[in-house]
Amino acid sequence: MKNTFGVSVSVTVFGESHGEAIGAVIDGIAPGISIDYGYIDSQLSRRRPSSGIDTARQEKDEYKIVSGVFNGITTGTPIAIIIPNTDTRSKDYSKIKDTPRPSHADYSARMKYHGYEDYRGGGHFSGRITAPLVVAGAICQMALDKIGIKIGTHILKCGGVYDRGFENYGTDISALEGKSFPVLSDAESRMTEEILKAKSDRDSIGGVLQTAIIGVPAGVGEPWFDSVESVLSHALFGIGGVKGIEFGAGFAMADMRGSEANDSFTYKDGQVVTETNNNGGINGGITNGMPIVFNLAIKPTPSISREQDTVDLANGNSTSLIIEGRHDPAIIRRACAVVDSISAICMCDMIAQRFGTDFFTRGK
Amino acid sequence: MKNTFGVSVSVTVFGESHGEAIGAVIDGIAPGISIDYGYIDSQLSRRRPSSGIDTARQEKDEYKIVSGVFNGITTGTPIAIIIPNTDTRSKDYSKIKDTPRPSHADYSARMKYHGYEDYRGGGHFSGRITAPLVVAGAICQMALDKIGIKIGTHILKCGGVYDRGFENYGTDISALEGKSFPVLSDAESRMTEEILKAKSDRDSIGGVLQTAIIGVPAGVGEPWFDSVESVLSHALFGIGGVKGIEFGAGFAMADMRGSEANDSFTYKDGQVVTETNNNGGINGGITNGMPIVFNLAIKPTPSISREQDTVDLANGNSTSLIIEGRHDPAIIRRACAVVDSISAICMCDMIAQRFGTDFFTRGK
Amino acid sequence: MKNTFGVSVSVTVFGESHGEAIGAVIDGIAPGISIDYGYIDSQLSRRRPSSGIDTARQEKDEYKIVSGVFNGITTGTPIAIIIPNTDTRSKDYSKIKDTPRPSHADYSARMKYHGYEDYRGGGHFSGRITAPLVVAGAICQMALDKIGIKIGTHILKCGGVYDRGFENYGTDISALEGKSFPVLSDAESRMTEEILKAKSDRDSIGGVLQTAIIGVPAGVGEPWFDSVESVLSHALFGIGGVKGIEFGAGFAMADMRGSEANDSFTYKDGQVVTETNNNGGINGGITNGMPIVFNLAIKPTPSISREQDTVDLANGNSTSLIIEGRHDPAIIRRACAVVDSISAICMCDMIAQRFGTDFFTRGK
Amino acid sequence: MKNTFGVSVSVTVFGESHGEAIGAVIDGIAPGISIDYGYIDSQLSRRRPSSGIDTARQEKDEYKIVSGVFNGITTGTPIAIIIPNTDTRSKDYSKIKDTPRPSHADYSARMKYHGYEDYRGGGHFSGRITAPLVVAGAICQMALDKIGIKIGTHILKCGGVYDRGFENYGTDISALEGKSFPVLSDAESRMTEEILKAKSDRDSIGGVLQTAIIGVPAGVGEPWFDSVESVLSHALFGIGGVKGIEFGAGFAMADMRGSEANDSFTYKDGQVVTETNNNGGINGGITNGMPIVFNLAIKPTPSISREQDTVDLANGNSTSLIIEGRHDPAIIRRACAVVDSISAICMCDMIAQRFGTDFFTRGK
Repeated sequence: MKNTFGVSVSVTVFGESHGEAIGAVIDGIAPGISIDYGYIDSQLSRRRPSSGIDTARQEKDEYKIVSGVFNGITTGTPIAIIIPNTDTRSKDYSKIKDTPRPSHADYSARMKYHGYEDYRGGGHFSGRITAPLVVAGAICQMALDKIGIKIGTHILKCGGVYDRGFENYGTDISALEGKSFPVLSDAESRMTEEILKAKSDRDSIGGVLQTAIIGVPAGVGEPWFDSVESVLSHALFGIGGVKGIEFGAGFAMADMRGSEANDSFTYKDGQVVTETNNNGGINGGITNGMPIVFNLAIKPTPSISREQDTVDLANGNSTSLIIEGRHDPAIIRRACAVVDSISAICMCDMIAQRFGTDFFTRGK
Repeated sequence: MKNTFGVSVSVTVFGESHGEAIGAVIDGIAPGISIDYGYIDSQLSRRRPSSGIDTARQEKDEYKIVSGVFNGITTGTPIAIIIPNTDTRSKDYSKIKDTPRPSHADYSARMKYHGYEDYRGGGHFSGRITAPLVVAGAICQMALDKIGIKIGTHILKCGGVYDRGFENYGTDISALEGKSFPVLSDAESRMTEEILKAKSDRDSIGGVLQTAIIGVPAGVGEPWFDSVESVLSHALFGIGGVKGIEFGAGFAMADMRGSEANDSFTYKDGQVVTETNNNGGINGGITNGMPIVFNLAIKPTPSISREQDTVDLANGNSTSLIIEGRHDPAIIRRACAVVDSISAICMCDMIAQRFGTDFFTRGK
Repeated sequence: MKNTFGVSVSVTVFGESHGEAIGAVIDGIAPGISIDYGYIDSQLSRRRPSSGIDTARQEKDEYKIVSGVFNGITTGTPIAIIIPNTDTRSKDYSKIKDTPRPSHADYSARMKYHGYEDYRGGGHFSGRITAPLVVAGAICQMALDKIGIKIGTHILKCGGVYDRGFENYGTDISALEGKSFPVLSDAESRMTEEILKAKSDRDSIGGVLQTAIIGVPAGVGEPWFDSVESVLSHALFGIGGVKGIEFGAGFAMADMRGSEANDSFTYKDGQVVTETNNNGGINGGITNGMPIVFNLAIKPTPSISREQDTVDLANGNSTSLIIEGRHDPAIIRRACAVVDSISAICMCDMIAQRFGTDFFTRGK
Repeated sequence: MKNTFGVSVSVTVFGESHGEAIGAVIDGIAPGISIDYGYIDSQLSRRRPSSGIDTARQEKDEYKIVSGVFNGITTGTPIAIIIPNTDTRSKDYSKIKDTPRPSHADYSARMKYHGYEDYRGGGHFSGRITAPLVVAGAICQMALDKIGIKIGTHILKCGGVYDRGFENYGTDISALEGKSFPVLSDAESRMTEEILKAKSDRDSIGGVLQTAIIGVPAGVGEPWFDSVESVLSHALFGIGGVKGIEFGAGFAMADMRGSEANDSFTYKDGQVVTETNNNGGINGGITNGMPIVFNLAIKPTPSISREQDTVDLANGNSTSLIIEGRHDPAIIRRACAVVDSISAICMCDMIAQRFGTDFFTRGK
């Protein structure tokens, strides 16, 4: 399905970085969800470049919801979100048409689209496309909120600096809400320092994000191929820059013994819970009622202003390249709102498949 | 689609550990692929328990291909693979019906299926179901072989012991073919020792698998949501025990700077290649012609014979459990053939979507 | 998805007429449905050739359900149905390999599969494949029965003889249940006479089937592309021989004026109903609570024993052909159980999408 | 997938009649197709109301293609088409919120969306949504044109007046191109007369459309559930007002004997052709190289200005209704461009699945 993801709730994205507009259509959202425009703005502002550590490109993200919402409430029909592109400077990119930027999609897109692709600013592969996804995801978060499901993402690691992991999930997720630099500890200044250091070195850095989803009932997900891990990883690898995902203790479990790794069941306040959560809330691909927890590896932004080796596809020889234009030394901060959004879309879809499309209309 | 995966080439699995039969239907395989039954047997034998380090359950894996193959050649119609269950000892499992095994699917399945699930031996969640997937994957590997695509998986880490990574991909993949304990270095004896140590401690261990896929042309995969990473991770997380996946340098990229992580392009023998392969052959979700490389985190086998805490769902109280029956102290060795198979199914699907269903009929 | 159909409830078919076995996998059936084996047998027996008017091929249809049912109750996991082929006489068919039978799939299959197709007895295109579909459909009918949805199909027209249309839907559907020659009036003998007349002329005839589905609540179906008409027609055109479908008054509506065709709403016993049902229970692609009604055009069986013109693909010249073997002079009687079955699968799928997979577990 | 249709080529629609904008996203179109804007305009103008016989609503259809086209050529990424709504008069509709119009989607939509639907002018169910589908379809027709596939639709019957059927397909399809009132004979004036007669009676009429698709190679389509009939009918029943579809001789085949109905094969200019085309170019769900031919039953426009019986959902009693506003006495003329478009989208999808996404880039 290419640019569409989801079954009962699905999202379709379109647009190019320097085209006329970008957007998304989210379908299958239950009728009766009140749109909180302030919340959308707050999520968009978390994704937007901020002074100092991000790209200098100014994006107003003046989105329009042109369908599927009537009198401020979802109708149940497709919600189309459109964001016109305004601050585009195409001349920055024209010279790199034949000299693909290392670690970007330029070369693989050219092989796929035979040179017809819109190469300006990464075209359809640009991180710009995540802006309408954040609007779509914010709407999903409003739907999830009605049934008590909450999602939070923080920067677990950046430039070698660690944030603490989730402890009290409810409190931690609330604390992250609306945060422009989402960390749970006091790591912001040290992480920012590392980002600025990379920037001044005309370089970039990546990091690790950690996400928790709480309030999901046990029994969601489908064997064998629509496991919760399958669905979330499928959608999240759609985000440029994500190169790894691990659920619960993830790769660390590879070094554990079963006796350490297994999450024992016990009763707490009459509910079945596990004493540890190394499986990240998922057993056999299906939720067990514990928080869903996963980490994402985000690679350093490929666009750096240092000279890099590449090829000249027009002439068939090796050459070098200096990327001009405006770029983020680290996208990890801005990626948090995107990860929240995509996770919300996936959860809405899995919940709707399990409990029907009206579940969100009725609410908890 | 639950138990079905894929678009142009799709696989459907069915069966329970102690039911009458398990099986898979693979649809969309091009007509004209000669079935190499010896190769299927060799892949099945790699998945089968071997003496000493694996479960004592004897599985003959006497599969039957009941459709889609005529005179030993694929017809283009669905290929159904059926494996009757023979060596089942259901009495081992009946007592655990209400006491879910930690880290297994027992509890989450019960919440999903309301107690109607076949709980014997993990039921539909049993690793047994991977046997027909190996047959399906072997057929896909025959199709891929016709167009020069090869896949190999080795145990990168187990019990703290490391194998070396891929170096010369072609040679290394050939060396792994048919190997019962697939490693590239001399790590087998030390890994085996760790597995046996865990076994004698009535415990289990996990590990990390590394897979390489070579021969895939540049330009395969689809933005945004059918990226190569999306498709592979979706399918691979279907395998029980997989808790993480990383492509190329993966989580290590989170600690690199862009100048280290970026894979420079250059010409080699007239072909565009990258000098490093930190992106694992995938840029922007699309292949760049370099080997596709990924690592999978495999958790320790949940079934251990030590006493574990759990709940008694019938009585609503905490209890403890000793798992009897026959289990693997480590599934990592057996998982290699499964990972090869699922990767092969995914690649067939992505290639068929890109180049048409007949591409494999015509061959290279 | 080729041989798979459905979203929340999906069915996959496999097999060839003269292969080792045929079968189907139905996935997404809710847990907790008790299997009524007598009902399955009765539906299979309605599909089976009966003496006199049908093919002489004896099919025992000894199906096995090898997964997804535990202690006679559905588990919620895929149900695999396997029917071994026994009474196959392949020699009847070998001579027609290069001389495609008119109106059969022989030629188009050869163009699609490049000669690798199993050409014996129509191979994968054989009506035999509908036998496991009938088993799958019968299970769906049991699920639908739990929530008060019932389906009935009768022969509306055959050989120029008309049956009466549905009048009292509930009574009529009950009357059709288990009927081997499903008509609502006394048309059986006259229709049978026409079938036998065609048979004695070494010819075949077709007809029109009419189906009604009652008990479906208003609000099922999805604009624009998963309308109830879309979903049913998609699945029903999978049946060989179906060449047309019309809902409600269908093609007759093309000759009506709006004032005649429009179904006025009124209240009856506190329920909104329509005074007529020209729309066949569907407005805007969504159910309105009235009976869903549709007619299917079934073409005459292509296999006739008269000499026919065709081509010799091996020699590249025109030739003639006499089809030997055992064939039905009319499949319309046997098709009723198949249409019931496919309709049931579609309804289960649409209901599960709308109300969640557990809706059938809870029951009405 | 609700508002999305297609596999390799897919279309997603959004919007409401009186919302801010309507639109469509078409994904999977091969790169390298030159956009002929004149052709899009010509197709849109065929769908637009014309003086006299259609609705008085003036729709400018000022569409924008905001993505997926670069320098007038498709890029291979999603093409988003947006049409702002301008001439909307919402006050005409507000009074009918609780009094559903007979044969419209008002009541079934209310049951589905619980009253949250945008009820103005049919909301998401409005025929307005077909305008962006016509743009999407026109782009698909450009792609098909590159490989020699052509599509034409004419009014076979309207108000009891018959057009002649297709004779010389190539010439006939060319003759229909751009025609505002698409008939093959001189039936226009008599049909128009019938439409105006219905209009003056404050009534409406329907009719039958006939479509032919030529140039499709043999071997396209998939058993069992993606037959050419399945795919086309699925998509075409998405159009409001379609109540029946028949392929080739369709319902007339139900009255034929096999010896009449079977299409004999013969050689003509070295090609395999059939002497008749009662199967409409499709055998066993797969194309046989002959023209694909189907008829669609279009019901009379539900909106008539006569008084009609309906219910008052707010008060729970029966009432009557006079529909004001501007409506078409017959949509059949305007539907031709829509049927062409949806057929084109389906054919692009089936061709891309069969021959790969690049097939259209390479061209014939």
